[in-house]
Amino acid sequence: MRITNCHIVDVFNKEVFDADLYIIDGMIAGYGEQWFPAAQEVVDANGMYLVPGFIDSHLHIESSHLSPSEYSRLVIPCGTTTVIADPHEIVNVCGLDGFDYMLQATENLPLSVFLQVPSCVPCTPYENSGARIGPEEIEKRINHPRVLGLGEMMDFVGVCAARDEVLDKLLVAKNAGKMIDGHYLGFEPRLDAYCAAGIATDHECATAKDMLDRIRRGMYVLMRQGTACHDLLNLLKGMNDKNSDRCLLCTDDCAAKTMVEIGHIDNNVRMAIAAGVDPITAICMATVNAANCYRLDDRGAIAPGRRADFLLLSSLDKDFRVEEVYTAGQHVASGHKYLASVSRTSIEKVSGKMDVKGLNAKRFELKLKSPHVRVMKVNPGSVVTEQTDAWVDLDKNGIWRRNKEDIVKIAVVERHHGTGNIGLGLIKGLNLKGGAIATSIAHDSHNIIVAGDNDIDMDHAVQKLIRMGGGMVVVKDGKVLDCVQHEIAGLMTDLPGEVVAQKLASIIETARRELGISGGVDPFMTLCFMSLVVIPEIKITDMGLFDLKKYDFVPLEIEE
Amino acid sequence: MRITNCHIVDVFNKEVFDADLYIIDGMIAGYGEQWFPAAQEVVDANGMYLVPGFIDSHLHIESSHLSPSEYSRLVIPCGTTTVIADPHEIVNVCGLDGFDYMLQATENLPLSVFLQVPSCVPCTPYENSGARIGPEEIEKRINHPRVLGLGEMMDFVGVCAARDEVLDKLLVAKNAGKMIDGHYLGFEPRLDAYCAAGIATDHECATAKDMLDRIRRGMYVLMRQGTACHDLLNLLKGMNDKNSDRCLLCTDDCAAKTMVEIGHIDNNVRMAIAAGVDPITAICMATVNAANCYRLDDRGAIAPGRRADFLLLSSLDKDFRVEEVYTAGQHVASGHKYLASVSRTSIEKVSGKMDVKGLNAKRFELKLKSPHVRVMKVNPGSVVTEQTDAWVDLDKNGIWRRNKEDIVKIAVVERHHGTGNIGLGLIKGLNLKGGAIATSIAHDSHNIIVAGDNDIDMDHAVQKLIRMGGGMVVVKDGKVLDCVQHEIAGLMTDLPGEVVAQKLASIIETARRELGISGGVDPFMTLCFMSLVVIPEIKITDMGLFDLKKYDFVPLEIEE
Repeated sequence: MRITNCHIVDVFNKEVFDADLYIIDGMIAGYGEQWFPAAQEVVDANGMYLVPGFIDSHLHIESSHLSPSEYSRLVIPCGTTTVIADPHEIVNVCGLDGFDYMLQATENLPLSVFLQVPSCVPCTPYENSGARIGPEEIEKRINHPRVLGLGEMMDFVGVCAARDEVLDKLLVAKNAGKMIDGHYLGFEPRLDAYCAAGIATDHECATAKDMLDRIRRGMYVLMRQGTACHDLLNLLKGMNDKNSDRCLLCTDDCAAKTMVEIGHIDNNVRMAIAAGVDPITAICMATVNAANCYRLDDRGAIAPGRRADFLLLSSLDKDFRVEEVYTAGQHVASGHKYLASVSRTSIEKVSGKMDVKGLNAKRFELKLKSPHVRVMKVNPGSVVTEQTDAWVDLDKNGIWRRNKEDIVKIAVVERHHGTGNIGLGLIKGLNLKGGAIATSIAHDSHNIIVAGDNDIDMDHAVQKLIRMGGGMVVVKDGKVLDCVQHEIAGLMTDLPGEVVAQKLASIIETARRELGISGGVDPFMTLCFMSLVVIPEIKITDMGLFDLKKYDFVPLEIEE
Repeated sequence: MRITNCHIVDVFNKEVFDADLYIIDGMIAGYGEQWFPAAQEVVDANGMYLVPGFIDSHLHIESSHLSPSEYSRLVIPCGTTTVIADPHEIVNVCGLDGFDYMLQATENLPLSVFLQVPSCVPCTPYENSGARIGPEEIEKRINHPRVLGLGEMMDFVGVCAARDEVLDKLLVAKNAGKMIDGHYLGFEPRLDAYCAAGIATDHECATAKDMLDRIRRGMYVLMRQGTACHDLLNLLKGMNDKNSDRCLLCTDDCAAKTMVEIGHIDNNVRMAIAAGVDPITAICMATVNAANCYRLDDRGAIAPGRRADFLLLSSLDKDFRVEEVYTAGQHVASGHKYLASVSRTSIEKVSGKMDVKGLNAKRFELKLKSPHVRVMKVNPGSVVTEQTDAWVDLDKNGIWRRNKEDIVKIAVVERHHGTGNIGLGLIKGLNLKGGAIATSIAHDSHNIIVAGDNDIDMDHAVQKLIRMGGGMVVVKDGKVLDCVQHEIAGLMTDLPGEVVAQKLASIIETARRELGISGGVDPFMTLCFMSLVVIPEIKITDMGLFDLKKYDFVPLEIEE
């Protein structure tokens, strides 16, 4: 195949040159002297810019709620041709069966999917997860050709404390000659130790100073711009011509709605250009820099011997459109339309993961020894919860009853091992009245999390979730008002992305309209982080209420 | 150990910052918050600049004529702490025994020596080399931890013609996950094919355009500045802020004299700075760029977890001096003085490689059918020889006799397999009168090459060489005037570098003074390239006279 009439972006000299591009057997053969045989197919690029396919350097496919095949269908037309995914969500639920499902489901996609072996499953010992991935389990998958290394090492405290079980995991990756992704929140000024452990990337930094510190120590910085996390513009302040080669782009968590309405890595590139970054530098962040970081020598550049993963862009300015997408020399998207077919993979091993014992409405009853209690206070749009206190109403049996205050019950129902655990707490700021909402997407262990002001509705919501095999549900007066099934591990569904985006928007609207939840709060997004023990100040797991300052479980009742 | 009072060069952000450096167990622990225990040793850097140790990205230790241990003694004080060497010279003579000698001799040096497995032994089929290194031999060494890949693939014609035996060699490296060094002379406009074969570096380009073409195709360009080859200043014209990260420094061939009097990679860095390159960019070329290219994640930067290979420089300007050198946290040079000891390795398997059969003065007799002959014409300071012609004097038996013209005999005496081959030719431009000079350093097969105007002296010179086990010799009137023994494979000697530099200068002076060789010509340097069949236009091997235009052997006599 020969692409003619194009301007090729040279990501190594960082300039544009005019030449025809020759592709043979899905690989770039060259663009030099015309020694090539006459092409069987000639594509006229009409003066468009030919760039390497974009690489998303860090993400969780599960956060889109979509099956991998559907994820590919949405991101390929945006120009993303390679992703490096950390499937710790589904592995938290299904263990290595979840990892293997992701491998199979991404086997023959137009999108190249690399999978990191999750390093922090379970996230902490303070919750029941679906599986445990220790060094032995990592060893079983680390050598797969589509595994680039160990997924984000979130236990930076454990790394810096040189805990054996943590270092053992890192060593599996090192000994296999593979790399280790990072996730460093800088609570500890021990970045030196974290980097000395050989952790090569970070996507958690938020300021220019954080960035400079990491780059200085040899890390690549993955600038995150997804649905919820918007770090890109801030981090670009720390990037300059001298260090831009250490900067990559990633989405981390990107909802279907974002992909459909705004874009993916292409949007990140547009934002960077709009913020003043040289277009070719921005393209390098999305292509060759990621290829260099992850040792993907077969892509990331328009150079002989590399995969024919390339895009035709309408321009190189802040409003460019991805007009054509090719992966391995195949035309896979045109005018934002996917040209490939969508496949289905058996979800037998990753569905119906609902092992809940002893569930009934009475299990949600909150009996307290004192009316002075700890309450989780949510801030709209934030995953940080403050610990506050309140004097609540108790009946003559000491059982909590709803009053006029904006305080409702929250519960985490263990669903992996049938322990029967239900962690109960109180949450302020949801502004929920007269019903319950529940979801099986609850980072990181993905037990069922439910919030409501009465036990009947809470139980009804969870029971519906269990019957669906997972998903999201809104219940009022004992009836299900709306639900979205997530039959894949309780995290994802095989519906088309546009449909999923619509259903998610719809259920949020239902929850707001019917249960009075504040307009500023996405209740499911809020709920899904209420169990994430690594984010302060106070969180709830199936084992109970966890105080991050004391770093221990605490009772609801405040000790006088 | 703690280094204090220093300015540290950050090669990733490309800036200088002030901090103490902490080193533990030969590794950089950090420079961040002071969480480190009190150092056992504190070094006051007196305001000097702390940079990573320099990396020579491509060289042949044999070209220095020194043993590896001695080579280390000379380059460490210059600040070179890592070298990536291609031992094809000694492997051409001794095969894998030569490779193993180099591995052993470089095992415990302060200098880190990586060895590439030579890819072109023998160089061509038109000469008898000491060994053949095919895919099976490469396979035997490619997985050694100090082997980074395959050495410079000089047979670019073979690569581009996709010859099986050439591709088989490349595949051994690819399948082992190791890289391939290049050597591309651009006679063929098939750079696309060469790069498509996965060849990652090149040190042969001479112009800015060559450089741009290679960098565009994903190659790293190794800018060569050694004793004979001075490409650096020219190539710097092709380097800019956008592509400098793809540019490395190398010496390729560096004589002991150069190292003693001028320097090594440090001199290349100084030259670059003097030519206007930003000092930190120049330092990056010598450090992190090479580490990135060769995947040496444990060095090339002052960053936690990397080896404590670092230098203290007096300044960052064009006259900087390397004041202190540390490798693996050990102080190995101070004020240009080596602090380590010099070790000796057994040369049993790589000495006495002189298997010459049937040698006597009569073997040098040149009997010709016609007086109109091809003559190799040397240009002083160049390795290119022109093919010219001459009408020479023959006696009544048709045997060549010296006349007033500046034409003498040149012969290549096969010394690896006792074939008894002697390739005879005529050479113009040496201005040699009344004697003979011989050397066993004759690229690439390193047979014995001798030039002279009478058979007695030529035979005497070669016999002396054989008795020495190799080296260089000057003979006049049947007597050895001067000689330098190279007991290691006929290529290197274990004497101190300063002594070797002196002896080499002396023997060149003797050859000039006693044999009248022109002042502008280094006769041994000239001779050592007269057998290098890949350099045009006409060369001599043990098999005869080789015409590069016809790409075949030719008789001396010109066909009328």
